[in-house]
Amino acid sequence: MKKSKLILVGAGPGNPELITIKGLKAIQQADAILYDALVNEELLKHAPEGIPLVFVGKRKGVHSFTQEQINELIVEYAKKHGNVVRLKGGDPFVFGRGFEEIEYVQQFNIETEYIPGISSAIGVLGLHNIPVTHRGSSESFWVITATTSNKELSEDIKLAVRSSATVVILMGLTKLQEIVNIYIENGGYNKPVAVIQKGSLPNENSAVGTIDTIIELVHKKQISPPAIIVIGDVVALAKSKNC
Amino acid sequence: MKKSKLILVGAGPGNPELITIKGLKAIQQADAILYDALVNEELLKHAPEGIPLVFVGKRKGVHSFTQEQINELIVEYAKKHGNVVRLKGGDPFVFGRGFEEIEYVQQFNIETEYIPGISSAIGVLGLHNIPVTHRGSSESFWVITATTSNKELSEDIKLAVRSSATVVILMGLTKLQEIVNIYIENGGYNKPVAVIQKGSLPNENSAVGTIDTIIELVHKKQISPPAIIVIGDVVALAKSKNC
Repeated sequence: MKKSKLILVGAGPGNPELITIKGLKAIQQADAILYDALVNEELLKHAPEGIPLVFVGKRKGVHSFTQEQINELIVEYAKKHGNVVRLKGGDPFVFGRGFEEIEYVQQFNIETEYIPGISSAIGVLGLHNIPVTHRGSSESFWVITATTSNKELSEDIKLAVRSSATVVILMGLTKLQEIVNIYIENGGYNKPVAVIQKGSLPNENSAVGTIDTIIELVHKKQISPPAIIVIGDVVALAKSKNC
Repeated sequence: MKKSKLILVGAGPGNPELITIKGLKAIQQADAILYDALVNEELLKHAPEGIPLVFVGKRKGVHSFTQEQINELIVEYAKKHGNVVRLKGGDPFVFGRGFEEIEYVQQFNIETEYIPGISSAIGVLGLHNIPVTHRGSSESFWVITATTSNKELSEDIKLAVRSSATVVILMGLTKLQEIVNIYIENGGYNKPVAVIQKGSLPNENSAVGTIDTIIELVHKKQISPPAIIVIGDVVALAKSKNC
């Protein structure tokens, strides 16, 4: 009888070579894999032949599972098969609800492990020549989800405007106008902004401008969710180089 | 004549399996490697035999290079050998001065590439059962360096106290008392804190407490730099489980 175990693995931002060696080994030794929409399916080719590969993400026209159903599926597969790899885009603890899954399965005495992944909040920016920190431009960075559990824009964004941090907003494209308004109200209309969709993948798309131009640019470039928004002086470093 | 190129590679937090596949491939195809003190030397075993492996980090009792000297060395090696891998702990753009190296070498028409790495700010926390975000505890995280270019503690820390963010402070152990004072002045004496040294390595060391107990705990556990400081309610999630 194989021991039941949940291994949370960060798949990184999309490019299949941006997973860690440890994450790849976990896939190669998995007895079942439950994966999300943002995971590159190329990675599944490394799984042992014949193991269950279960898509539990949200995708248009496909029945999607609630977090509670995913939690239950993990327990079911771990008990039946052994090592369950829970493959998530980016890092499992960066707005990935990974810890909720750990808390749930620990009630059933299922062992858990976490293997970090490249968060798009850092890696995708860098791949677009935007260093998340740079001496003289930004000595901190703040990563915020626009979609909190109560569906409101996080209050933290108002504090962020007043800081010297590079502000990275995940899952925020549908709230871009609201974010722009907060910056304008606080005199930040000239702040450099970039919006990046499918960063690290061949079909990536991006717009680079300022708070007062970004809405139009995003519209013109037809950028759609999921996308990353990055606001701060470090964005101007990229702009001066290749846009 | 081989083309000159600088490839900035994030080596991750220390465990050699926490580098990306892409990063490992860059090492395997390097013509020269310049590496920092926080890089695990195990990774150098993957380099082609006989290539120059140059330690340019800061270590007690060893002559250390200035950033300007490192910049010049990169150009020298790139011109002489071709692909120079600049291997840095964590991610090259998270307080790694990576973009300064890119800016410098681009003056010499040397091509550049960035390969992200697992930042300890996310990965090391997770490996200590601290999810950098968790619904109900923290819907953002703020990564701050305690050692800014003017040697002062970043002003951002004062704003961070007032936010709901998980606050992650890198290179801050020598300023821990100052950080604790800021939290106490703002009524945060009870905030959960963890300090982690050499996270992800076999000889890692950590202390978990609150603002009012952490100084004593760090002293008792004999934690020394470099270490990560994480402040926020998510720390309590770890504490309840395995401390």
